[in-house]
Amino acid sequence: MKVKLVISYDGTDYSGWQVQPNKNTIQGQLESAIFSLTGEKVRVTGSGRTDAGVHAERQVACFNVKTESIPAEKYYLALNTILPPDVKVIESSLIEEDFHPVKCAKKKTYVYSFYLSNVELPLKERYAVKISQDLNLSEMQAAARLIEGEHDFKAFCSSGSSVLTTVREIYSVKIEKVENDLKIYVTGNGFLYNMVRIICGTLLKIGEGKLDKNVILEMFKNLKRERGGRTLPAKALKLLNVEYR
Amino acid sequence: MKVKLVISYDGTDYSGWQVQPNKNTIQGQLESAIFSLTGEKVRVTGSGRTDAGVHAERQVACFNVKTESIPAEKYYLALNTILPPDVKVIESSLIEEDFHPVKCAKKKTYVYSFYLSNVELPLKERYAVKISQDLNLSEMQAAARLIEGEHDFKAFCSSGSSVLTTVREIYSVKIEKVENDLKIYVTGNGFLYNMVRIICGTLLKIGEGKLDKNVILEMFKNLKRERGGRTLPAKALKLLNVEYR
Repeated sequence: MKVKLVISYDGTDYSGWQVQPNKNTIQGQLESAIFSLTGEKVRVTGSGRTDAGVHAERQVACFNVKTESIPAEKYYLALNTILPPDVKVIESSLIEEDFHPVKCAKKKTYVYSFYLSNVELPLKERYAVKISQDLNLSEMQAAARLIEGEHDFKAFCSSGSSVLTTVREIYSVKIEKVENDLKIYVTGNGFLYNMVRIICGTLLKIGEGKLDKNVILEMFKNLKRERGGRTLPAKALKLLNVEYR
Repeated sequence: MKVKLVISYDGTDYSGWQVQPNKNTIQGQLESAIFSLTGEKVRVTGSGRTDAGVHAERQVACFNVKTESIPAEKYYLALNTILPPDVKVIESSLIEEDFHPVKCAKKKTYVYSFYLSNVELPLKERYAVKISQDLNLSEMQAAARLIEGEHDFKAFCSSGSSVLTTVREIYSVKIEKVENDLKIYVTGNGFLYNMVRIICGTLLKIGEGKLDKNVILEMFKNLKRERGGRTLPAKALKLLNVEYR
């Protein structure tokens, strides 16, 4: 049977989603927990990789298993008895054999978190990045509008990934400010390597007045990474959810 | 000169505020940072102790120092270059010699955080306690009203502290629910050992329907700890601020 999982994790102490030799990974934790339960070596397929240090509120994954002694909808309880405190399965269910967590994904939402302060705040630092000056929100919002739509995001990705195309569609970029907390929500049909962290780094520079919002259009045109903002730290990035057809 | 500090810390990895031999404490970190800066062994006096694992958004403390090469209002910058990431000074200022962080405190506010979920959520667990059932908020609110006022809180404190009197005044107990997050804010003129965690443990049991709200009146009358709820975990407790005359 094929089991679909919704997984939440604090990525701080992990080398990201994907299994790598001698590294502590989310996929590795799930596969070893399933092995402890069933004795089966399965491959857990995620909706996408998250990088080292990135968190997830609702990552989606699935696996095939022969053992049917545990009903699919009870798998989350069984897995949680084995998984460490920073990785938990919040839902499990039986899913059709042709379900594929990457191919069937309709959209994904990430959120990037900042806080405004002149001093690093210990209670914010785990999941957010400090900004020292008030940002120009209307400029950032105007830049966010430019990012929305289907574009070649080659200038918004780090080298090191091999993909067939760097064209992606971004459905929305929302900027939300509540008191001293600023969050950027990015929803799209798919994301390139470091893409959200580069989008947010570029929006940050625009908000600080260090880049003009039209740099976005330039980057779509000349496809050059150098013009954009830096790749922001992983710790403030969270995969919020993945929606399916 | 006398320097007043406002300090923020993530108490997860600390044995609480107060210096103890061979333990990592907040007071110890501050005193050793001041020693590194000035070569002076000073005593940092806090507005009160926080227990092992308890956090603070704005703890207040002060110390006397002979070195005047660092202006009082710049101390926070100098200290932050030495302090670890989980303890930071957010403000520093020159204060009158007769200022005493305990005696001059008018009120203190603590907040205790819960989240409602059937599964432990890795991104909430660091600073909140999971509750599995929806709570009866109106019963909790009615119980909160009974706690407000001047009472003998002997039944709401753990043994192990020696105090002259167990009478304290609680100015307000506020319960706030936003989506699946529930917070209890407790403001008072002073708190006994574990008092907020026992008040919140008792309110929790009332919200779960396992205790009647009148248990509060009974505890004020017979002064017996046994009737109340349990002492809740430290990790979800945060000293929010201390107000002065």
